[in-house]
Amino acid sequence: MSSFVEKNIYHHASGEAEQTVKAHSNKCDLVFYAAWFCPFVHRTWLALEEKEILYEYREVNPYKKEKEFLDINPLGLTPAIAYHGKALHESLVLNEFLEDEFTGSKPLLPKDSFERARCRLWIDHLAKKFTSAFFRTMQAQEEDKQKEGLNELVETLKTYLDQVKGPWFLGEQFSLVDITVAPWIFRMYILEEHRGFKDELVGGCWPEYKKLIKERPSVIKTSSDRQRYTEFYQRYLQNETESEIAKAIRAGKPLP
Amino acid sequence: MSSFVEKNIYHHASGEAEQTVKAHSNKCDLVFYAAWFCPFVHRTWLALEEKEILYEYREVNPYKKEKEFLDINPLGLTPAIAYHGKALHESLVLNEFLEDEFTGSKPLLPKDSFERARCRLWIDHLAKKFTSAFFRTMQAQEEDKQKEGLNELVETLKTYLDQVKGPWFLGEQFSLVDITVAPWIFRMYILEEHRGFKDELVGGCWPEYKKLIKERPSVIKTSSDRQRYTEFYQRYLQNETESEIAKAIRAGKPLP
Repeated sequence: MSSFVEKNIYHHASGEAEQTVKAHSNKCDLVFYAAWFCPFVHRTWLALEEKEILYEYREVNPYKKEKEFLDINPLGLTPAIAYHGKALHESLVLNEFLEDEFTGSKPLLPKDSFERARCRLWIDHLAKKFTSAFFRTMQAQEEDKQKEGLNELVETLKTYLDQVKGPWFLGEQFSLVDITVAPWIFRMYILEEHRGFKDELVGGCWPEYKKLIKERPSVIKTSSDRQRYTEFYQRYLQNETESEIAKAIRAGKPLP
Repeated sequence: MSSFVEKNIYHHASGEAEQTVKAHSNKCDLVFYAAWFCPFVHRTWLALEEKEILYEYREVNPYKKEKEFLDINPLGLTPAIAYHGKALHESLVLNEFLEDEFTGSKPLLPKDSFERARCRLWIDHLAKKFTSAFFRTMQAQEEDKQKEGLNELVETLKTYLDQVKGPWFLGEQFSLVDITVAPWIFRMYILEEHRGFKDELVGGCWPEYKKLIKERPSVIKTSSDRQRYTEFYQRYLQNETESEIAKAIRAGKPLP
């Protein structure tokens, strides 16, 4: 049943995001294959918006695995892009690609090799440890597993925040590191409402960093109505979703 | 007991690798913190050798978590480097750093942004899916789990090989993609001897690609005596090792 439900997910962005989608409906060299609800999509959407790159937004439902989209990404996962007819996927790979290709746009990585490497190190930390702890906490059904997930989430977040110079990871420059974590910070209220997450558990610069992320214009412009996310994440909170990521978390395998 | 044993691992490289270590014993701007047996170390070692970068090899035992090394990498994991006194870790991050910093050396990524992104996409596939399937197969104790791991390993390898232009991933250019998988190809004999891996299971260009990797001068120069690897991997084959990666595999968590 859950699979049936997911194929019938609310089929387009709402709220502020709906306006942004409309503003990006014209044909373009860069086609952005996106699902409004997907945090991995959100990462690349933020990079596109921050860099003010011209793109055509195309909504796909990654649960449907439609042939047209499988031709773009054989894994059937969002986000993906087609650029001058050639396809790529994987949010972090896409973000690095946008950085490499659109050199005239606002940079989201520093020029210095060592500082770039430090960014990649913390992107890796967030992508591997923080993200998986978020999903594990959300999908956990037993109270002890929820607590275990939450502790891990808080620890990985603290470890990261110790590296944030403030206001952003690099200081004044907003970067791909901030973008890597932003979609989950935006969704943190789900863990507040259902898994006992509290700002006090993290402390330090967390309340300020969270506030800044949520007020970032690119984040606001790519946000749908809260009610729609709440509907969507019900299936994760009940561990009923058939998303590839949820299945990987259940099986104890690497995130797709 | 296993933890005790691992703190007493054979404490230096042997065979060809021992000569290479000796040739890199002088003080240098770039210090390479390495463990002769570690496949993640091997990745960065190959990049250093391929790019002919000057480095000082320093052997550490990552099981010991000695203070001097924890100051370099708080996670206590190899590989790590110190460059002009500043520290970095994570094999794939280090390889990208070497590429960014040593622009006068032989490039291991293509110049074209799209092709670089395609390299990163397949590096990601190998690092996440192939590597974890390798460890899962090695650590599995029950026959059905070993078979399950082996099938996954073969599938992820086939998916990758379909993208290899030949002789290398990019064609004539040897790249970070080949380097990402090389340490495990070098160690594949362990799965041949203990988990029923056979070349015929993979087919296609696999026998040729494997042969080329094993004959690559940088691979030969960084190889210790086979007997030493055999001793070392006993603990993985019995699932007794206390390495961080083995613990992550057991817990169904992302690789460290």
